[in-house]
Amino acid sequence: MLKIALDAMGGDKAPGEIVRGALEAVSSLTVEVMLVGLDGPIKAELNKYPANNRISVVSAEDTIDMGEHDLAREIRRRPKASINVAMGLVKSGQAQGVVSAGNTAAVMTSAFFSLGRLEGIERPAIGIVLPFNEGRVFLIDAGANVDCRPSHLVQFAKMGSVYMEKVVGIARPRVGLLNNGEEFGKGSLLLQEAYEALSKSGLRFVGNVEGNNVHKGIVDVVVADGLMGNTALKAGEGVADYILQEVTKALKTHPLYALLGKLFKPTLRRALGRLRYEEYGGANLLGTNGVVVIAHGRSDAVAIKNAIRLAVDAAGSSLVETMRSAFAASELAAAGN
Amino acid sequence: MLKIALDAMGGDKAPGEIVRGALEAVSSLTVEVMLVGLDGPIKAELNKYPANNRISVVSAEDTIDMGEHDLAREIRRRPKASINVAMGLVKSGQAQGVVSAGNTAAVMTSAFFSLGRLEGIERPAIGIVLPFNEGRVFLIDAGANVDCRPSHLVQFAKMGSVYMEKVVGIARPRVGLLNNGEEFGKGSLLLQEAYEALSKSGLRFVGNVEGNNVHKGIVDVVVADGLMGNTALKAGEGVADYILQEVTKALKTHPLYALLGKLFKPTLRRALGRLRYEEYGGANLLGTNGVVVIAHGRSDAVAIKNAIRLAVDAAGSSLVETMRSAFAASELAAAGN
Repeated sequence: MLKIALDAMGGDKAPGEIVRGALEAVSSLTVEVMLVGLDGPIKAELNKYPANNRISVVSAEDTIDMGEHDLAREIRRRPKASINVAMGLVKSGQAQGVVSAGNTAAVMTSAFFSLGRLEGIERPAIGIVLPFNEGRVFLIDAGANVDCRPSHLVQFAKMGSVYMEKVVGIARPRVGLLNNGEEFGKGSLLLQEAYEALSKSGLRFVGNVEGNNVHKGIVDVVVADGLMGNTALKAGEGVADYILQEVTKALKTHPLYALLGKLFKPTLRRALGRLRYEEYGGANLLGTNGVVVIAHGRSDAVAIKNAIRLAVDAAGSSLVETMRSAFAASELAAAGN
Repeated sequence: MLKIALDAMGGDKAPGEIVRGALEAVSSLTVEVMLVGLDGPIKAELNKYPANNRISVVSAEDTIDMGEHDLAREIRRRPKASINVAMGLVKSGQAQGVVSAGNTAAVMTSAFFSLGRLEGIERPAIGIVLPFNEGRVFLIDAGANVDCRPSHLVQFAKMGSVYMEKVVGIARPRVGLLNNGEEFGKGSLLLQEAYEALSKSGLRFVGNVEGNNVHKGIVDVVVADGLMGNTALKAGEGVADYILQEVTKALKTHPLYALLGKLFKPTLRRALGRLRYEEYGGANLLGTNGVVVIAHGRSDAVAIKNAIRLAVDAAGSSLVETMRSAFAASELAAAGN
């Protein structure tokens, strides 16, 4: 059975909701969870529930000061911090993936430091599964990288394609480049060069895609630098919040609305929830030598369970191995040129 | 009374809906509208309605081939095309603003060519009024400029501040820089340099703002390059579409929901409508020597009326004159350094 190392100390609601998330995961998924962190607090939480032999505790007795100015140095100086110990379990093969609701930059730094990058990938990136209708679209990079080069965007596109093919099961995923217009020649110099490079990449590149078409199901992978990708993701969340707020206000204007609202709000919340990666699952850190899922800092037990599911999906479909050979093959091809 | 020159030939539904929009505008706003374009088709439309002495027709007998590869050259070669004639009416003082639902690039080119830039503004930009709760926030640049320099972003911020102060009536508007994190030091080199420049600009700069906080009312002006700004705008539209579609689907799952839908959908549509600048009004082209409002290509009569209202609001609050003196003053200040 797959084992996932769960950083029990990461996140606003750690360790309580993290421990509960682990329990929800093992009861609904085929997985074992290794809770990594301070022994005492984890066991105090676990003792509130019946014992479960798919849950284990791995002690990690150091903590990271998130207020530290040089977070990267702090991560390297604290090998026994929970996030580093969790990564170590993946590196040694004791676990097949890591889930953490800790600070994104801290998780990324720990992954680079402990697992390293896959050969041929200059910049690991964050990929998010977004919904459309009944389908899914993969947005990469959702915020890890700024000041990208065209070759980085091609690598993001390739990582996204491997993800959609192996984990979601889409054959020959269609790749679109996030831009401010559909036509060839739109966008910055970076985007124009990336367009050219994607056209020659061997990927199924279908051209530019505008922000309003991300959720339309016309592409399977949306590639962007971390600034545009993050903007697309976050602006969508902002609009969803705004709509929910307007609807809530409208439901208060008449007693009948309130009654109907009770029936309908769960449906609306479900539609909106699919837009939030923190509820729907988590962010996939792609390009490092292991499965890493970053859950939102605010994650509750359900969000943690969903993040574990993402890690299980990735580990169970040999994502990292496929990614490694895909990039190794392209290195060979490039060397043969 | 203010006079607005309306390009009767621009937009997917021209001239029918454009003419109807003019009639709706003069019946609900204190404005005269000059319909600019081919005499025959405009008059054929006008003849369907009772005569209205606040509507006049200005003949422009040339047309622009939108399929033309070099659109900028085409605009310059066709001084008698409707959009150029409309701009000319503003330049000569016969009208106080232009509204067009034509191709954005064509309208921008015509505005640069006919009206010119205001002194001290290197790059005119597109500003959009977005809603939050009962308030409004101004997003600039929403797509006109890529490959910006920090000084361009400062100019956008200043134009946006003048707009919110003069047209919307917000004293000392708060300016936020769209970025992939709140903290100082986030983002690309461009954004880091823009942050520094905005801090020293004399504007009320409050720091970085993430996409999910655009609609929260914590800033009055959101400044971005055209790629991030366009992404924020369009991704929001895409999410709004997605939500409307999910809700429509959900309303079909139970007979009782159909009743709810009747009550509920207008509210939802209103909330979504406020998010769409093409329905809510139009895009303000700022930085040229006259009031220019670009309505969406799909505009119907209501959208045209709302775009005319935006132009009236801008012209009626001396937006261009204020912008001119604000930038002239800063030029003097810069020269005095």
